[in-house]
Parts: sequence; C-alpha cells; structure tokens
Amino acid sequence: MSKQELVMLEGTGGADACCPGLLTAPLDEEQAADLARVFKALGDPVRLRLLSMIASKAGGEVCVCDLTPAFDLSQPTISHHLKLLRQAGLIDCERRGTWVYYWLLPETTDRLAGLLTRPAGTPLPDRGERAGAGS
Amino acid sequence: MSKQELVMLEGTGGADACCPGLLTAPLDEEQAADLARVFKALGDPVRLRLLSMIASKAGGEVCVCDLTPAFDLSQPTISHHLKLLRQAGLIDCERRGTWVYYWLLPETTDRLAGLLTRPAGTPLPDRGERAGAGS
Repeated sequence: MSKQELVMLEGTGGADACCPGLLTAPLDEEQAADLARVFKALGDPVRLRLLSMIASKAGGEVCVCDLTPAFDLSQPTISHHLKLLRQAGLIDCERRGTWVYYWLLPETTDRLAGLLTRPAGTPLPDRGERAGAGS
Repeated sequence: MSKQELVMLEGTGGADACCPGLLTAPLDEEQAADLARVFKALGDPVRLRLLSMIASKAGGEVCVCDLTPAFDLSQPTISHHLKLLRQAGLIDCERRGTWVYYWLLPETTDRLAGLLTRPAGTPLPDRGERAGAGS
C-alpha cells in the first residue's frame, strides 16, 4: 500500500509532488534540517570545485587520482571533502583496484534545482523605483 | 561601453551566458568561493525556514515581526540569520517605522537553479546494475 502510494505520488507531478518547495511554502523543521545538510555540503569552495569536476567529466566518472592534483591539499583532505559530498547524496563512488571512482547523483542536483525554481509565471518584482525613492 | 557589453551578454542566452555552470565545467577558485558563500548561507535550517517564509509570502514581503514568532530564538539571533541571507544576495529589506520588511531576490535563486540544472537532454545514468554486480 505504501509503495503504491509512493508510485502514485511520483506519477502525479515529479519534484513538485514529492518535495517541499523552498519558494512556494514555508519549510517545516524536518524538511529544513534535511535540506540544510545538502546546502552545507555545497557551501565550501573545495567541495564545489570537486563537484563541478566530477559532474562535468565526459564519461561520467572521475578517478580520485585525477582530482587531487588540481588542489594544493593532501589526499586525506580531498577524501574528507568527497565523503561529505557523498553523505549529502550529491555523488557516489566505487573502488576499483587501487583507486576510487566518483560520479554525480543527478537526482539530488535535479531536486535542488526544482526547489529553487519559481513557479511558472512568477514575475520578477520591480523594486528599483521604491528603493530609489527613499534616497 | 561596459553597460552595453553587459546588456549584450544578458541577451545572448541568459544564465548560461553570464554564469559558470556547476555541472557543465570545472569552476575556478574565484567562482567557487563566490558560489560557496551563497550555498553556505542556505546551509542552515533556520535560514532555510526564514527564506521559505519570505519567498512564499503572498504579497511578496514579510515584516520581521511576523517571522520571529515562528522560532524559539531571540530577535537578535533571527536578525543575524536574516543578515547572512541578505549578504548572500538572497533577500533584501527596508525599514519602515518600527519594523523591517524582507523580500526575496529571485535573481539569486534563479541563478542557483540554473547552475544546478543539467543541460537539456542529459540522461540519468543507470548505475543500478553495476552497483549490484559487486555484491
């Protein structure tokens, strides 16, 4: 029954149907805590560079041995940042022989993009005039 | 001249033309530092709840007096979180009489949504089979 309900939810409208909209309704505490964990993982320049290197790689996956040389950081530090990205559900990895290979989990970035997208038809507010009026 | 160049950039393709794509090319250090600051502002449950309350408000702006009661936090703590959201370019505010009123800056959330959106036609990788093969 619960599985069927989940399938129905997924079928009724994608991200909007299953996930809280950051811009359309107030988040509750649990939703906010869950989402903050992912944004916190993105809130670091090294992790953002790692994520962009992994996500933009032709072929879809990157050996950790190709990531480390781009940074003036130790291998354990890089691995720690990669672990935080993995715990946030942004990437996954697999060990093959000596090296670990990483790839993007696009479901998570898709979810974030959906949360940050305004509902269709929402106009950009024009606050220029009012802001100028006070000066 | 520089204003004209900016207009031309904006006219050639929106977010893709003006901003680095997080998922399409490796970020450089400066781009990553700039972007990390915004994601860091989002990486806190209280700030996410504040942002969602402001963004989803009918009428487009919220009095700080309507935000504070939703939290078990002091007014100065709420104000500090609001300041961090403002410094990240996610919201702006205006004092009118006793109270300060806040509103979303949708240009910033639009930019983040664009950065997290995969290029059209990118398929979701199917890694289920390979992940299962090793177990």
